[in-house]
Amino acid sequence: MTDAGFQRVALIGLGLIGSSLSHAIRRRGLARSIAGHAQSAKTRDTALRIGIVDSAHATAAEAARGADLVVLCTPIGVCGTLAQEMAPVLSAGAIVTDVGSVKGAIVREVGPHLPRGVHFIPGHPIAGTEHSGPESGFAELFDGRWCILTPPAGTDAGALGRLTAFWEACGSNVEIMDADHHDLVLAITSHVPHLIAYNIVNTARHLERVTDSEVIKFSAGGFRDFTRIAASDPVMWRDVFLNNKEAVLEMLGRFSEDLTALQRAIRFGEGETLHKLFVEARATRRGIIQAGQDTAAPDFGRRPPPKPSGP
Amino acid sequence: MTDAGFQRVALIGLGLIGSSLSHAIRRRGLARSIAGHAQSAKTRDTALRIGIVDSAHATAAEAARGADLVVLCTPIGVCGTLAQEMAPVLSAGAIVTDVGSVKGAIVREVGPHLPRGVHFIPGHPIAGTEHSGPESGFAELFDGRWCILTPPAGTDAGALGRLTAFWEACGSNVEIMDADHHDLVLAITSHVPHLIAYNIVNTARHLERVTDSEVIKFSAGGFRDFTRIAASDPVMWRDVFLNNKEAVLEMLGRFSEDLTALQRAIRFGEGETLHKLFVEARATRRGIIQAGQDTAAPDFGRRPPPKPSGP
Repeated sequence: MTDAGFQRVALIGLGLIGSSLSHAIRRRGLARSIAGHAQSAKTRDTALRIGIVDSAHATAAEAARGADLVVLCTPIGVCGTLAQEMAPVLSAGAIVTDVGSVKGAIVREVGPHLPRGVHFIPGHPIAGTEHSGPESGFAELFDGRWCILTPPAGTDAGALGRLTAFWEACGSNVEIMDADHHDLVLAITSHVPHLIAYNIVNTARHLERVTDSEVIKFSAGGFRDFTRIAASDPVMWRDVFLNNKEAVLEMLGRFSEDLTALQRAIRFGEGETLHKLFVEARATRRGIIQAGQDTAAPDFGRRPPPKPSGP
Repeated sequence: MTDAGFQRVALIGLGLIGSSLSHAIRRRGLARSIAGHAQSAKTRDTALRIGIVDSAHATAAEAARGADLVVLCTPIGVCGTLAQEMAPVLSAGAIVTDVGSVKGAIVREVGPHLPRGVHFIPGHPIAGTEHSGPESGFAELFDGRWCILTPPAGTDAGALGRLTAFWEACGSNVEIMDADHHDLVLAITSHVPHLIAYNIVNTARHLERVTDSEVIKFSAGGFRDFTRIAASDPVMWRDVFLNNKEAVLEMLGRFSEDLTALQRAIRFGEGETLHKLFVEARATRRGIIQAGQDTAAPDFGRRPPPKPSGP
């Protein structure tokens, strides 16, 4: 166990993030033991079989008993109830955190249930794939990605330092942010992108003049890129939209306003307007690659890179 | 040279598609020689240096002279003018095709310029990356992808057969389709996806309450997926939208209608509506993977696959 580590980590929820956290913890020896909770017996059995937990528990309270770090890795909608269940058994000095994509709602739903002496520090690793379940995790998921922590006013500096060191040891860069600002930032960088991805897949499925088979066959023209994030966990995403309503509606309003302007530019054949906007978009892509947040390989590296061609 | 091959192929335009075609032609020996035209002297020099053309010409007519296959690989907006320039030198029996993402406009702009005895068969390989220029091409670009041909009524069956065999030898599956239907299908599978990708990048750049730096840092939540296709060639895409206006506006209307309904479901907290829609979207992703049109690897394979973990 390193300085970034804990005695007993409880992972409440063993999906993509919970299982990846386990692998990241094992990779660097960040816990003496990992206790896990999952609602389904099948998931608990799988988790034990593949070794991502040392013990698997049918209730969150059993898993959290005696833990010095408790990480809620479930859809947002059940976090409040789980916190309530765990509250009586939480150790004084334990850190309770989460990984949810919305932070304001977590502060409101989880915070009030936790006893004094427990350090509550909401968190959000900006990492994921479209796969779900206990077998989808891998240790490298958080490498080079940002993890945002949103400590409420008055958070213990020592606890914040320990949680920061933990995430850094899992491979992340840590950023501290206000919960409401987090929710606004994520609305544009994650929630609205997922919503419009779900939406265009839905639109494509219900056309009368283009068949589903044509949509699938000819999806390499761009559409398939959207289907990846539209394949993410439906319950998790339902809860995101139900719990970050205001920020999502604000960003969606801006998106629709801009789309209407683009639509008008197309209708009236304003080539220069379109061209200028398309040129600007390239700069954002370059920025993301320079910041190490995406690969520069063509097509996300889906295909082998071009072979060098000699003269 | 195989049966799918030609004596002299003229590639008019040496960007991603033109250069990839050259590599695909070389891979299977589909031409005795490749003549290329690019507007810029720098591109012509590069093309000669890396060996994607045997001769580089400052005008399309010089490149097309004596060719039995001429492939227009330029943005759609200049195809009409180029056809007009080449018309006097085209050989009887030559096939003229293109690779543009809009077919109705190509039929209208190119067709009338071509002399009798020349076979005009518009085409569109559904393949690409976000990279541009003569050095971005690679032989595998068309492997397993669909190429749509839209032969006008009365097209010579022999010429259509030769062009079909050529694309198959380049690695593609070939589908024959009416030009107007092509434009409708591509509007939903390619053009609208690109437009909304450009649009969300634009929206994100002009927010007052979220900085550009935050958008870039936290883009791994989904936003970065959109920036890839928004980094595609701006001139090419301007021309797509100017030349497929009706179909794009029709599909955009459907997209916006559906998005408004989703927005309303979020506003009124209709979790079941959201969940149902998100579940359905997964089926489309599965279909695309089963059809071989995308990778099943998490995150498009951007990261190494999870290492097997023992018990």
